[in-house]
Amino acid sequence: MINYNRVVLASRPKGEVVPENFRLESVSTAPLKDGEVLVRNHYLSLDPYMRMRMEDVKSYAAPQVVGETMIGGTVGEVVESKHPKYAVGDTVVGMLGWADMGICDGTLLRKVDATHIPLSAYLGAVGMPGMTAWYGLTQIIAPKAGETVVVSAASGAVGSVVGQLAKLRGCRVVGIAGGAEKCAYVVDELGFDACIDYKAGNLEADLKVATPDGIDGIFENVGGKIFDTCLARMNPFGRIALCGLISGYDGEPMTISNVRNFLTMRLTMRGFIVSEHIELWPQGLGELGTLVATGKLKFRESVAEGLAAAPQAFIGLLKGKNFGKQVVKLA
Amino acid sequence: MINYNRVVLASRPKGEVVPENFRLESVSTAPLKDGEVLVRNHYLSLDPYMRMRMEDVKSYAAPQVVGETMIGGTVGEVVESKHPKYAVGDTVVGMLGWADMGICDGTLLRKVDATHIPLSAYLGAVGMPGMTAWYGLTQIIAPKAGETVVVSAASGAVGSVVGQLAKLRGCRVVGIAGGAEKCAYVVDELGFDACIDYKAGNLEADLKVATPDGIDGIFENVGGKIFDTCLARMNPFGRIALCGLISGYDGEPMTISNVRNFLTMRLTMRGFIVSEHIELWPQGLGELGTLVATGKLKFRESVAEGLAAAPQAFIGLLKGKNFGKQVVKLA
Repeated sequence: MINYNRVVLASRPKGEVVPENFRLESVSTAPLKDGEVLVRNHYLSLDPYMRMRMEDVKSYAAPQVVGETMIGGTVGEVVESKHPKYAVGDTVVGMLGWADMGICDGTLLRKVDATHIPLSAYLGAVGMPGMTAWYGLTQIIAPKAGETVVVSAASGAVGSVVGQLAKLRGCRVVGIAGGAEKCAYVVDELGFDACIDYKAGNLEADLKVATPDGIDGIFENVGGKIFDTCLARMNPFGRIALCGLISGYDGEPMTISNVRNFLTMRLTMRGFIVSEHIELWPQGLGELGTLVATGKLKFRESVAEGLAAAPQAFIGLLKGKNFGKQVVKLA
Repeated sequence: MINYNRVVLASRPKGEVVPENFRLESVSTAPLKDGEVLVRNHYLSLDPYMRMRMEDVKSYAAPQVVGETMIGGTVGEVVESKHPKYAVGDTVVGMLGWADMGICDGTLLRKVDATHIPLSAYLGAVGMPGMTAWYGLTQIIAPKAGETVVVSAASGAVGSVVGQLAKLRGCRVVGIAGGAEKCAYVVDELGFDACIDYKAGNLEADLKVATPDGIDGIFENVGGKIFDTCLARMNPFGRIALCGLISGYDGEPMTISNVRNFLTMRLTMRGFIVSEHIELWPQGLGELGTLVATGKLKFRESVAEGLAAAPQAFIGLLKGKNFGKQVVKLA
């Protein structure tokens, strides 16, 4: 028996998530059964989708159970194994949740090679967020060279990959992010053609300047007014990959006013969940892994230190306080 | 030279369309040039899309020019021809506009056979409205047998065909229409499984009862609150064919509140204009023509008498006062 810490959902949020919605607990590992592995987690991934799981509403996944370990992607190292496919010392990606350790029967576990790709990248650019970007861009927006693609939350784990993949495909790429520092990073480091600081208060005018030929594809992570403003500049036959609506996750009304544009511009919008398209992961992760290993796909991380910091880091993520992929470095 | 009447756009509407937006004029035919035909129109089609053309806004088609003959589909008879493909006496479908006669160079003109199909049906179930229904249902919603399809403006030229085609494909079909009489027609005559009277004031509750297994496909003609209410009952991977937004054509705000459902239910919505898919018209019109000729596809018309009645009939159409396909019988 080994003692370790975990974070459970203590209560469902009423509006904004607060620290009291979580509880840090010390628990002990049970003895391993046949087919199980014990993993020590090195990094925990924090992602906006977790906010929706905290609600008890009909959605694409069952809600997070109150009193149970918060759901979450992890990378770590096998420390004990009764599973024929995993040996002590293997580095693995899994869904072990907000915890320093965890037992897993192999479900959603995957061995990864950290030789050329940093381990934490398997939670970001070469993990679920990267695949989300890859799927929405290549399977829904499917842009042609020369088309204009706009992506919100552009400096984030998903948005940063969307834009870089679109640039590699010859598109004009415009990001939307909060603050001058993030926008500078998006243009100077990630190579977007432009990035609009939505906090500057000139979204509509700035977007017009940044998209002189209109918009052919939107990769939407935010929703609300930002999305609506983009809709107004769509070109005929534009495509919208609806990935997230982070601006409405605390229960604010989430409306679209420019509905008429869907008709007049013959737009297509599709909401998607990347975990439902597992058959494409080998292809997507193959491309993403090669790009990261060869330095052609850049990423940035916000690293919180220690499991106890996870709730506050998650609350910050929902408010856009992170800068790049938000992870928690565990003991 | 022959004198005839036409209706021109006198002014663009400010909000609701009023009779003063139109002007009836007497004009004379010019001498026919080589390649032209002179057509006497028997029926004029009135359709919601005309409302959008009356605005001077960026849309899928150029706006109707003020002072010119109102755009519109027509069926009629060739009375003079200098075109090798058309002879005097041919019955033709064309786009000759709100006029008793017109000269055409063959563009958008098509000979039709009125032996087994009433001439006016080429403006409805076997014309553009029928094709609109066919395209949106088969190419966007693409329902499987057993799925539930909801169609608004269900007794209208498009909606009535959508529902009957969906029934023929084994779907559960629920219409939405205004008033008990229209709803009774939709169920009793057209064979829909249910029809909800949105004027009865219980839309949400009635829709819940009528769609016990949720909704897999929406064919949307109306928009606004009706559309939003349907969105809330969509099943995972539902499809929405966005054909019209008649409730917002007078400039009322047109919003969607249930945007989150697009994400949680992974919905696909596509706006479309059937005239951009001409390559499918032979296939669609073939199916529709056979169904009408064999009595398997029913339709109903509201017939206004004489060109001078067209403006008032059009205003009535926008308010849902028509019952079935709105046409104007010309002299």
